Amino acid sequence: MNDVSKKAEPGRRRDSIAEEAAEIKAMRAETQPTRRATVPALEAVLYEPIPVLDSGFVRVVDYLGDDTAIVQAARVSYGRGTKKVSDDRGLIRYLMRHRHTTPFEMCELKLHVKLPIFVARQWIRHRTANVNEYSARYSVLDREFYVPERMAAQSETNRQGRAGELDPTESDAARALIQGDGDRAYGTYLDLLNETEGGEVRDPSRKGVARELARMVLPANVYTQWYWKVDLHNLLHFLSLRADPHAQYEIRVYAEAIGAVVQKWVPITWEAFEDYWTKGARLSAQALRLLKTMLAPGVLADEAKLEALRKESGLSQREFLEFLDTLKRGE
Amino acid sequence: MNDVSKKAEPGRRRDSIAEEAAEIKAMRAETQPTRRATVPALEAVLYEPIPVLDSGFVRVVDYLGDDTAIVQAARVSYGRGTKKVSDDRGLIRYLMRHRHTTPFEMCELKLHVKLPIFVARQWIRHRTANVNEYSARYSVLDREFYVPERMAAQSETNRQGRAGELDPTESDAARALIQGDGDRAYGTYLDLLNETEGGEVRDPSRKGVARELARMVLPANVYTQWYWKVDLHNLLHFLSLRADPHAQYEIRVYAEAIGAVVQKWVPITWEAFEDYWTKGARLSAQALRLLKTMLAPGVLADEAKLEALRKESGLSQREFLEFLDTLKRGE
Amino acid sequence: MNDVSKKAEPGRRRDSIAEEAAEIKAMRAETQPTRRATVPALEAVLYEPIPVLDSGFVRVVDYLGDDTAIVQAARVSYGRGTKKVSDDRGLIRYLMRHRHTTPFEMCELKLHVKLPIFVARQWIRHRTANVNEYSARYSVLDREFYVPERMAAQSETNRQGRAGELDPTESDAARALIQGDGDRAYGTYLDLLNETEGGEVRDPSRKGVARELARMVLPANVYTQWYWKVDLHNLLHFLSLRADPHAQYEIRVYAEAIGAVVQKWVPITWEAFEDYWTKGARLSAQALRLLKTMLAPGVLADEAKLEALRKESGLSQREFLEFLDTLKRGE
Amino acid sequence: MNDVSKKAEPGRRRDSIAEEAAEIKAMRAETQPTRRATVPALEAVLYEPIPVLDSGFVRVVDYLGDDTAIVQAARVSYGRGTKKVSDDRGLIRYLMRHRHTTPFEMCELKLHVKLPIFVARQWIRHRTANVNEYSARYSVLDREFYVPERMAAQSETNRQGRAGELDPTESDAARALIQGDGDRAYGTYLDLLNETEGGEVRDPSRKGVARELARMVLPANVYTQWYWKVDLHNLLHFLSLRADPHAQYEIRVYAEAIGAVVQKWVPITWEAFEDYWTKGARLSAQALRLLKTMLAPGVLADEAKLEALRKESGLSQREFLEFLDTLKRGE
Repeated sequence: MNDVSKKAEPGRRRDSIAEEAAEIKAMRAETQPTRRATVPALEAVLYEPIPVLDSGFVRVVDYLGDDTAIVQAARVSYGRGTKKVSDDRGLIRYLMRHRHTTPFEMCELKLHVKLPIFVARQWIRHRTANVNEYSARYSVLDREFYVPERMAAQSETNRQGRAGELDPTESDAARALIQGDGDRAYGTYLDLLNETEGGEVRDPSRKGVARELARMVLPANVYTQWYWKVDLHNLLHFLSLRADPHAQYEIRVYAEAIGAVVQKWVPITWEAFEDYWTKGARLSAQALRLLKTMLAPGVLADEAKLEALRKESGLSQREFLEFLDTLKRGE
Repeated sequence: MNDVSKKAEPGRRRDSIAEEAAEIKAMRAETQPTRRATVPALEAVLYEPIPVLDSGFVRVVDYLGDDTAIVQAARVSYGRGTKKVSDDRGLIRYLMRHRHTTPFEMCELKLHVKLPIFVARQWIRHRTANVNEYSARYSVLDREFYVPERMAAQSETNRQGRAGELDPTESDAARALIQGDGDRAYGTYLDLLNETEGGEVRDPSRKGVARELARMVLPANVYTQWYWKVDLHNLLHFLSLRADPHAQYEIRVYAEAIGAVVQKWVPITWEAFEDYWTKGARLSAQALRLLKTMLAPGVLADEAKLEALRKESGLSQREFLEFLDTLKRGE
Repeated sequence: MNDVSKKAEPGRRRDSIAEEAAEIKAMRAETQPTRRATVPALEAVLYEPIPVLDSGFVRVVDYLGDDTAIVQAARVSYGRGTKKVSDDRGLIRYLMRHRHTTPFEMCELKLHVKLPIFVARQWIRHRTANVNEYSARYSVLDREFYVPERMAAQSETNRQGRAGELDPTESDAARALIQGDGDRAYGTYLDLLNETEGGEVRDPSRKGVARELARMVLPANVYTQWYWKVDLHNLLHFLSLRADPHAQYEIRVYAEAIGAVVQKWVPITWEAFEDYWTKGARLSAQALRLLKTMLAPGVLADEAKLEALRKESGLSQREFLEFLDTLKRGE
Repeated sequence: MNDVSKKAEPGRRRDSIAEEAAEIKAMRAETQPTRRATVPALEAVLYEPIPVLDSGFVRVVDYLGDDTAIVQAARVSYGRGTKKVSDDRGLIRYLMRHRHTTPFEMCELKLHVKLPIFVARQWIRHRTANVNEYSARYSVLDREFYVPERMAAQSETNRQGRAGELDPTESDAARALIQGDGDRAYGTYLDLLNETEGGEVRDPSRKGVARELARMVLPANVYTQWYWKVDLHNLLHFLSLRADPHAQYEIRVYAEAIGAVVQKWVPITWEAFEDYWTKGARLSAQALRLLKTMLAPGVLADEAKLEALRKESGLSQREFLEFLDTLKRGE
């Protein structure tokens, strides 16, 4: 993990890091009164960079709505939420369970993210979001490249996955190669731009290649930045895919950092999301068929025992009936 | 069910029905050679109205892609599909199981649909589709209203559902009320327009209310029409919600009619969709916990027995391992 | 125009109106401190219903971002906006002029709207927004119908437009017809539901038709409600189409009410939107060709005169050059 | 321009190029009968790669609809188009002029594109399209890098643009740097993968880095491929931004190649698009004000002269009136 605030870097970056820290401090110092729905737990971390990978971060820049806003929209009501928190929780869980997704679109999160380009390329595939990326046509990129701490080997069984770490010797050699290539590429980049590390003209007799062309030599592990704004429903969908064990590690750590933010922001929704999505499972018709053959003989007929098991599981009566229906389906 | 081709109606409609049938016949009579992916089973029903409700229909007007186009896009390959149909099937099932949804977006279906306005209002909530609706600002709507054959009662337990049919007396009375109200409203509509049933000016001394205003008296069971174009992924999502038993009957019958079309069009995808979505189930963390307590003692340890059960279920080895992982999760 | 706060209505509505007013008052009374971008001019009207048509309204329920948030996202910067307001203005105008639309997506507005169903049907065609509508499957609709104050005639030249008002006699007759039909339809609705105006069971020997069916007799001028959330770019696009003179009057008045809200919220963006979109114009290749033949002879050659005219027009040097390029294009 | 069919490349690519050509030939050889709307001019180029940049291409893989399909959807009619081509043209021009965009969404184009990653990163920002990209997590990328033929200098006045070409010496030096960096990076890539150019294991004592990690050293000018499917409205929007002189040259050439395809596919729509969009212009309120001061004195009052000028310009009567309204606005 990096320490965003203290990191020292060569050339132009050093000044801008201090400036950025000052701007963040200034924004955190100010508060205004608002009549809008407000979440103190999220206000507490507003604007603060949360470190991810070796030089990346996620910062919450703004948000709209909270758990009660979901209830308010679902009911198309005039006030906020219901009278009791327990009613709000019941409704949110019902909406999540039955895929009534539109009320979750009524909350919005805006993040500032710093991430390697190959991660950005996976991330941008989620189309239902708003993005403004740092422009390498307009500005010069910093000398910042992601280098994995411990390199992973190619999986033999899963063509698109990893299988364990490399041994330290091979790993260190790979890290050195990646680091060396990044440095060399950045050297070429400055050379094409005809600029020094500090942003001065290098050779006055040359014109320098246009920024929009020079950038093409930079590798996919160079860091970029963007503002990314998304509604809660689409954010949860993003997290369900990108915090999944099948996702590439380098995007998963961003998804996990954002998940922790969402939990602060809309705790009731997050709990429902975990119960019904990430910690639940989808079973195919075939798997359901198999499951039925694995049950203890007579268990579905023993109502007293079933009721005891249900209580232990935490399942509500209503969900329990839906569950039994699922088990009996296709008989 | 209605018989779209023979139906006779008063006034202007009678001529246009004959014209429509002639146009459909003409389009079905012509074929052109194409190098594109073509699905004979879908060509066979192209342009033909499939009756839905008392006066509605669904017509396939165009399509793009087939099962092999999904494989082609998933592989970003030059040719179509793989060498063997069994490989295509395996890949399509893998994509469906793991929510790799983008290859399914590579197929497209265009429908012409005639439907009551209250059904259209639910349908249009699915935003990822293209729509052109018949304009009641521009044209005069026909005297066609949906009247349910057998009326349903309000459910006592489910605020937004039905519970069985009304007894014949109450049902007939309700039908008569609905029929009468539609007729009266249509009369008012023509009166405001200052038009006769046949489209003539009624009273030359009056100007008539603008069509865009006059239409406001028509009830939500008047029929409208639209062209609706959607990609296969979003279509399956639509069907998973609207062919669901919780969906209102009047939209469900449209979803079912479209489902039968999709089965003709992309049979391998349809089979996977049924196995993993409509005939499968999502279980919550709590339901999984409960499930584990319901299994036959020792069943997870008896590998020979498990393998026998697996074969019976039709589950593949790979899916079986994923299934066991699910059962063991959280232990 | 209606007066939302004082309006008295029969039956169940009377209580709920008082309740709604109380809820709005309660929400307006509370403020919390926030570190987020805040717009005092919008806070001042938060939650207050702005009357539209005879019984409709628009209420701002929440918002995210302001003019400086657009600048911040365009620059992918750490702080808010630039040092000087004049720089922010220049950048926002540049973004608007060159269709750099993504920074405008970084602001979000959430509205609660009450509107007739035929207006809702036009509105919902704008797909890039989030919507939660009051459910007539779940709840009973109120007896509220839109009746135009003065009826308009059908245009002879524009098939989908109006042409002036009807004379008072025809107009009053039309209003009476619409009012009468609404009342009759609402009567049928209650009859089908087997409910009294006050929500009591009417005839205990009957079951009543399901709400999801009974609603089908209500005409398109019955009022519905929804929460509608949209980003600023898509909102401006909506307004450019719906505040246009070609839009139907009944949706235009909503667009105008929202436009006044946007002007309070992001005044710099609103000014740019008016200058480049609503008060500007798009000219075709043919129109440009015609224009050139209409210019005063020699005007393009007289630089001193051109510069004087430019100053008068308020056009910047940069835009002036782009403008001359446009005029010279295709020569 | 490259010659996609003959190009020889080292190692694994050589075989696959021959295979690809054979697959394309096979697909072009086959035709099936279809009842769908078919465009012979587009069938003629189906599957053929159109070369772009030094190693890229665009291939039309499938399409849905034609000019008449737009008319059919706009009218929600049963048959195809209107009786006369001139009516279709008039309607399409009307739709284009008045931003009635939904009928253009009723046509769809599917392309297979090979393009450098930095071009792909701009392209993907257009979210209303379907994409399947070649996966560098799953497969090994080929040794193909874009190297500009003649290097451009950075513009002094436009921070995100170019200004002319570099002189030959500086240009050649830059080309050599880019070429050298690509080769070196590809060498590192193979080294990390522990593979030879031919795809063999290089050092059996090493495991090799996972593909999803190794790719991070490849620069932004390496070629990738994708399937891209989009509707005609969104395609025209893409072209209006990316075929614009402000767009980066490297994406503009793709937009131009696609534009030529669209012209074959829907010639009436293409003509309208050029007349109203790419060859037309948007003028601000200020520019309109300036324009009025530049007109020949009295020209707006001389109806005979105006009519003569109108005829010369090719503007229709109706558009001419709209044009005069624009000029008079704000007086």
